[in-house]
Amino acid sequence: MTKLSMSRRRFLQSTGAAAIWLPTTVKGYTASEIQALYVDGEMQEDVSKWELDTPCLCVDLDLLESNIAAMESTVNQNGIASRPHAKTHKTPVIAQMQLDSGSVGICTAKISEAEAMYQNGIDEILMTTTNVTPTKIRRAMNLRQENPRFVQATDSSQNARLLSEAASAMGITADVVVDVDPGGHRTGITPGAPALELAQLIDSLPSLNLRGLLCYDGGSQHVKGFEERKNQTLERLAGATDTFDLFNQSGLSTEIFSGGGTGTYNIDHETRGLTDVQVGSYVFMDAQYIDIGGETDKDVYSDFAASLTILTTVLNDQYEGRVTTDAGAKACTINRPWARVKGETGMSYTSGSDEFGTLRYEDNASRSYRVGEKLELIVSHCDPVVNLYNQMYAIRNDRVEAVWQIAARGMSA
Amino acid sequence: MTKLSMSRRRFLQSTGAAAIWLPTTVKGYTASEIQALYVDGEMQEDVSKWELDTPCLCVDLDLLESNIAAMESTVNQNGIASRPHAKTHKTPVIAQMQLDSGSVGICTAKISEAEAMYQNGIDEILMTTTNVTPTKIRRAMNLRQENPRFVQATDSSQNARLLSEAASAMGITADVVVDVDPGGHRTGITPGAPALELAQLIDSLPSLNLRGLLCYDGGSQHVKGFEERKNQTLERLAGATDTFDLFNQSGLSTEIFSGGGTGTYNIDHETRGLTDVQVGSYVFMDAQYIDIGGETDKDVYSDFAASLTILTTVLNDQYEGRVTTDAGAKACTINRPWARVKGETGMSYTSGSDEFGTLRYEDNASRSYRVGEKLELIVSHCDPVVNLYNQMYAIRNDRVEAVWQIAARGMSA
Repeated sequence: MTKLSMSRRRFLQSTGAAAIWLPTTVKGYTASEIQALYVDGEMQEDVSKWELDTPCLCVDLDLLESNIAAMESTVNQNGIASRPHAKTHKTPVIAQMQLDSGSVGICTAKISEAEAMYQNGIDEILMTTTNVTPTKIRRAMNLRQENPRFVQATDSSQNARLLSEAASAMGITADVVVDVDPGGHRTGITPGAPALELAQLIDSLPSLNLRGLLCYDGGSQHVKGFEERKNQTLERLAGATDTFDLFNQSGLSTEIFSGGGTGTYNIDHETRGLTDVQVGSYVFMDAQYIDIGGETDKDVYSDFAASLTILTTVLNDQYEGRVTTDAGAKACTINRPWARVKGETGMSYTSGSDEFGTLRYEDNASRSYRVGEKLELIVSHCDPVVNLYNQMYAIRNDRVEAVWQIAARGMSA
Repeated sequence: MTKLSMSRRRFLQSTGAAAIWLPTTVKGYTASEIQALYVDGEMQEDVSKWELDTPCLCVDLDLLESNIAAMESTVNQNGIASRPHAKTHKTPVIAQMQLDSGSVGICTAKISEAEAMYQNGIDEILMTTTNVTPTKIRRAMNLRQENPRFVQATDSSQNARLLSEAASAMGITADVVVDVDPGGHRTGITPGAPALELAQLIDSLPSLNLRGLLCYDGGSQHVKGFEERKNQTLERLAGATDTFDLFNQSGLSTEIFSGGGTGTYNIDHETRGLTDVQVGSYVFMDAQYIDIGGETDKDVYSDFAASLTILTTVLNDQYEGRVTTDAGAKACTINRPWARVKGETGMSYTSGSDEFGTLRYEDNASRSYRVGEKLELIVSHCDPVVNLYNQMYAIRNDRVEAVWQIAARGMSA
């Protein structure tokens, strides 16, 4: 696991500019103060996370590294690989850590995310959403021209023809996988004969190169109870396995058969032919995942640790049984269950107000807070929370080790 | 109303750099394409909003201007002023339009928002939240030193003493207002004697200058039914009026008595002494406000028009009764009621999925959509939606007139 126990220097250098990127307005510090923290790419001063201005996003490096190591260990034991989804972290430094740990590539949900990752040194990219407009197809082909390791999904014959025409016009060949619908009807083509027909079309088109298939069963990831989750997702992936068999029988590539997520990472390998899991949330975890229960711990999903937190400051303590903080919906989202105060019991946090959070005490609250004091929140749903922040603070033993640019923040196009 | 019927040149020049800011990654265009659109600060090409890559945020200029004009007209008739809240739009160009129309200043919720506004040419700023940490107090005093028109809220004697000490240390005097709690207990000091005591302390401190009070009754803004809303907010503002009287009787300044919002803008003037309304959402409107009903139209709050929309593209139309789009929670938030398809009936949109929206047709749907087609959404809750985007497209007659930087996006600290 030497790859994961990166030194501070390793972190700072791992993706070049992104790691030592110096924002002009890091929260809590002026540009000149932040500049003063770095000499030759190394942070010089010993800054406690509790000194950071709030609200801000923090990731605990020990927990992040142990999550990445645990995932690699499990998928290796299960004979598959990880292809982590960068839609969760949107952060090139973390993508590089995942690749360094053994992941076969990363996924992105949008072309703008793929561009941001590539611009920051990540090249093994599978885009899991179909590009349907002329603008996005052009962007995808531009990226493919620059980066031969870019693979994109397609889910209709009409789209496959457009992709092939665009690739032909640029004199390139584009790698594609067939997106197969697990039954949620959100994206993907119907498994079985329709998917086979599309794959055969792709195989016949002059400028496309079929690499396999993907089937993301998003609807099963948060099913409560390990057995219930296992039964549901294996049933829903059966169509994809049939499709995998049809591809093989027709001599079509099944080099990639990607699917699954953090909720089913230790289940998906039972799907025949599956090569890798598109796990995202495991790096950070959140209250939504903690509540689904795990294989060993039925009530709490404890396979991975909650590494991502929001720091917030108490603004008002004048009223009985509650305090107001500076982290509301714009800092936490309004996802449920609500964020939780890390390390404390007997209190509940809500972020329904745009600008302010509310912390209410129950009779058995483990402590209370005064104005100006800070508390740390385990986030509700990590993906949209990360998407609110321009940077995250990388923390080890409560000290700031680096400031990471969330380079694909807001890249929803 | 000549101030509001700005020419295209006027828009582009109104706040200098912010208006003609050229992002390197405007969605749908490469940096070189965007550069080609502008010559000497004027957009040269005739770009339809329907050509923009999606998801993207658009504001209709005719509707935005009419909303600003309507607000000014009403508050002028009612003998008060507007002090619009920039937490809604986070966009210096719109703040400047509001000031040009007659607003007495703008509000900000956070110090980072105030800094972003000041850096982009806006100086008449009332920060409505108390700065409680040494870092934020230092930032507030730095801003006050540069910008004599910056006023900040305080809601405790402890905080007032800290503000005065910080101002003294910098050799300046800081202008403050007392934040009075309307009963929601979120922020503010209890009205009446406690608020008076705080005001008297401020008046006695060496480096603070009392300018008045504010009382924001956020909990009443979305009460359904005009009469219900009116009764509730006037009742809840009564304590602030008592406080206003106490200040006057004690010879303390009530130059500023700020309160109210978009839901109560035509009610708040009945509160004796109130000088201005901190209206935010009226510039954009959203599904949440449309549903509360107005004074004349009981069912639909139609005083202002929905100027803010999200453009989204259909990605998948393969399944009966529904299509999938590219605007999910990261582009729309998950606020309720959900976003609505502008100009269409008999269909419902949901954005519960992080990356994808779902449009479902009812039996009487006014139309259907195919892959690649775009649709326009009236947003659910404008404030957190704006906070997801780096820029908004300013549209007139469906043509792109400018690209505006949302300079205070993500400024939650």
